[in-house]
Amino acid sequence: MSLTLAQIAEYINGNVIGDANYSVSSVGTLSNADSSQLSFLSNPKYKKFLNQSCAGAIIVLKGMAQYVTTNAIEVDDPYVAYAKAASLLHPTEKKLPGIHPSASIDPSAKIGANVSIGANVVIEQAVIIEDDVVIGPGCVIEHDVVIRKAANLRPNVTLCFGVIIGERTIIHPGVVIGADGFGIANDNGHWIKVPQVGSVNIGNDVEIGANTTIDRGAIDDTVIADGVKLDNQIQIGHNVTIGKHSVIAGCTGIAGSTSIGEYCAIGGGTGMAGHINIASGVQLTGMSMVTKSINEAGIYSSGIPVEPAKQWHKNVIRYRQMDKLFDRVKQLEEKTKD
Amino acid sequence: MSLTLAQIAEYINGNVIGDANYSVSSVGTLSNADSSQLSFLSNPKYKKFLNQSCAGAIIVLKGMAQYVTTNAIEVDDPYVAYAKAASLLHPTEKKLPGIHPSASIDPSAKIGANVSIGANVVIEQAVIIEDDVVIGPGCVIEHDVVIRKAANLRPNVTLCFGVIIGERTIIHPGVVIGADGFGIANDNGHWIKVPQVGSVNIGNDVEIGANTTIDRGAIDDTVIADGVKLDNQIQIGHNVTIGKHSVIAGCTGIAGSTSIGEYCAIGGGTGMAGHINIASGVQLTGMSMVTKSINEAGIYSSGIPVEPAKQWHKNVIRYRQMDKLFDRVKQLEEKTKD
Amino acid sequence: MSLTLAQIAEYINGNVIGDANYSVSSVGTLSNADSSQLSFLSNPKYKKFLNQSCAGAIIVLKGMAQYVTTNAIEVDDPYVAYAKAASLLHPTEKKLPGIHPSASIDPSAKIGANVSIGANVVIEQAVIIEDDVVIGPGCVIEHDVVIRKAANLRPNVTLCFGVIIGERTIIHPGVVIGADGFGIANDNGHWIKVPQVGSVNIGNDVEIGANTTIDRGAIDDTVIADGVKLDNQIQIGHNVTIGKHSVIAGCTGIAGSTSIGEYCAIGGGTGMAGHINIASGVQLTGMSMVTKSINEAGIYSSGIPVEPAKQWHKNVIRYRQMDKLFDRVKQLEEKTKD
Repeated sequence: MSLTLAQIAEYINGNVIGDANYSVSSVGTLSNADSSQLSFLSNPKYKKFLNQSCAGAIIVLKGMAQYVTTNAIEVDDPYVAYAKAASLLHPTEKKLPGIHPSASIDPSAKIGANVSIGANVVIEQAVIIEDDVVIGPGCVIEHDVVIRKAANLRPNVTLCFGVIIGERTIIHPGVVIGADGFGIANDNGHWIKVPQVGSVNIGNDVEIGANTTIDRGAIDDTVIADGVKLDNQIQIGHNVTIGKHSVIAGCTGIAGSTSIGEYCAIGGGTGMAGHINIASGVQLTGMSMVTKSINEAGIYSSGIPVEPAKQWHKNVIRYRQMDKLFDRVKQLEEKTKD
Repeated sequence: MSLTLAQIAEYINGNVIGDANYSVSSVGTLSNADSSQLSFLSNPKYKKFLNQSCAGAIIVLKGMAQYVTTNAIEVDDPYVAYAKAASLLHPTEKKLPGIHPSASIDPSAKIGANVSIGANVVIEQAVIIEDDVVIGPGCVIEHDVVIRKAANLRPNVTLCFGVIIGERTIIHPGVVIGADGFGIANDNGHWIKVPQVGSVNIGNDVEIGANTTIDRGAIDDTVIADGVKLDNQIQIGHNVTIGKHSVIAGCTGIAGSTSIGEYCAIGGGTGMAGHINIASGVQLTGMSMVTKSINEAGIYSSGIPVEPAKQWHKNVIRYRQMDKLFDRVKQLEEKTKD
Repeated sequence: MSLTLAQIAEYINGNVIGDANYSVSSVGTLSNADSSQLSFLSNPKYKKFLNQSCAGAIIVLKGMAQYVTTNAIEVDDPYVAYAKAASLLHPTEKKLPGIHPSASIDPSAKIGANVSIGANVVIEQAVIIEDDVVIGPGCVIEHDVVIRKAANLRPNVTLCFGVIIGERTIIHPGVVIGADGFGIANDNGHWIKVPQVGSVNIGNDVEIGANTTIDRGAIDDTVIADGVKLDNQIQIGHNVTIGKHSVIAGCTGIAGSTSIGEYCAIGGGTGMAGHINIASGVQLTGMSMVTKSINEAGIYSSGIPVEPAKQWHKNVIRYRQMDKLFDRVKQLEEKTKD
């Protein structure tokens, strides 16, 4: 794949400053790209690196081409433009349609056109797989699952019975969708299982990172709306709902029945209690601890970052003495009262 | 499956208030159930929702039937009763016994009666699988594993060599039991592997959530006692022991050789240091940080929940100045001494 | 496998105090070993347990044999010596070379000598597998992957296209290497995918714990250097680099483009922001929250361990009032100024 800067500029709605007929064939970082590669700069504060780059062309913000010693493409949003150019130069591999002979497919399953099914895939009864779906090797698709158009399952994904996956949704390896939620009831000192009879409904254009787990609902469904992006190793409890275009970074855990609005951005390692509501537009920094509903959009944080262990020891002790310190200050105030 | 309220009431030890011959066929939430469904109310503070429900019947606490406008079943513990009724109306799917032709089973393995083995399952030498066990597609059972009666492995589970799984234990997709513990020794600046020669012993009636990992012991075994319930994405280090009927929520990590008592309840995202003891009856709230043994039953907590980022910044600074504040208060006290 | 103490002592560079012809056949803990087993004591403070042990022989620090009532082997570092002795008595199972008939191997793949490939393994185009590699059942090896000499993949591992695995590297079940990093760009309110065109390069003698995930680079590669040891359920973001001989405990998450030096030791449950640098020799205690670069070797910590819930409630309130307390102390200081 080799494209001229003119072709790329047209696709990303940019202007070539330099040789529009120059060709590039892949992307590279500013520091490592060679003359056959396209690079980009999104943060203007690093513009000093522009003239050290050996890239054949660089995507920059409008007005920044003057700092580029090679060819430039000026755009409104260099990162978005880069993403689009990169997908043009590095298109997603198109798996050839076809069913690997080692796949086990129940005769009652309905398989659409141009579907690619990898080695050792298992597809149970009454599954519906729409056109252009790709299912990687080793995936297990239990009965009554629906996978909509052009969804892409990477290897070793498990979809439990009845789960629905939306169009163009990408699911990375090791993901488990629709396992039982953590429903237990204490019957005279023994925990008994509460049947999990809901399912999971995943929207269109969702992406789900490696080894993430999304539990089926206890009664109603767990729901992930269109455009949600989940990183790796996230745990989504039963009956959680996540609104459109919210994004969640890795290692986050969300307990059951919590509802997250639209356009939220949740940092990695966050923990959320169950049965709470997070308003649309909430941003949480990494390792946030969320125990109550958040009713207003805005940025929220928690946690005290690392310090040298010696100071940390001292500060933890002080923390535990705070209550007494309040008393001491109160006494001082009374003593010095006029 | 359709059952009369009389049949259900008998099974859950309740009293029908209304039409005992009324039939329901599935469960539903108070707000979404229709007239063919059974619902429940466990928290009396939500009793105002009872008369808005379209459920065909509602399980309630004794004395609460008066608030139900449709049929009611009164019981001592509505949540436990609901769990039992739901398992009656939604019985676990019974996989047909049989061995899928694509399964690879070593001839030395002993397979009991009424066992169901899914597609692509791999069973190595000297494995023992007792009666009524279900093994989902894609599971790998290494040599010398023992799976006791009626245990249920969902798809893509990995059991490493020698692991023992108790009766009726349920293991969800992606679980790995018996991988090597994290044993390393520093030999002149290089880490060398400490062989992990123990195994894992899982009791009866245990449930293990999706993508949870339980490491094999370094010398002796890692032990999970009867009735323990583990949620998703939990990490259990080598030689951990967990006592009967303890429950652990998702994303918790427990370092090696830590011992947890019986009837503990551990919130999600908790981290526990290694080589400590947690007494029976300890409850930990979510995201607890446990660095030392806890010797008495009770509720323990840690962590400071989120606040708006601006306040958080200020509070973190104040936290780091606390030690100086103690000095300042001390000086004030000396200055104002009588 | 049965060895005399003389044979073991020679291998671990120790001195037998007692019967050098005595034989042991396995390892055991001080408290549980019997007379056919070899044990060890690495922490001298537990020497009181030496004379209660029924072990056939005990590895101890030089000068400690006097406290052993049975046979002893004195060495410089008992834990390292134990690790070596244990690997002698419990050698890693040698899988027989050969390719299971159910494996799906693309004809363009190059398979070395003495390679063992388990049931249902999938190997795509142009994969290179060097001599003595072991690939467990259910692994999926996408196209263009390179697995160097004597690497050992346990069951159900997924290696995405182009990933490189070093010599003797051990990868535990459920690991996913080379899934797409979390690269998204906001295009007028919709998140679009940023193609992840880099790969993952794993060095020699690395060990990667069960269900750990390591994402492929966005443009350049994610790099794990020689001798790194990763525990279970770790998440490594795109373009992270980890220096030689660093070790990371379970449930840690490292965000994209962060660089970790050599010989670091990172406690479990740690979270690291993206785009930061951690100097060589940094040690982090468990559940550390790292938001900024750490430029000097040393021990760093964060987090406030659990306390009884009642005190925790009070302390969280006090924490939030700290800023006001500083004001009150300031007022007191002004009031009492001379």
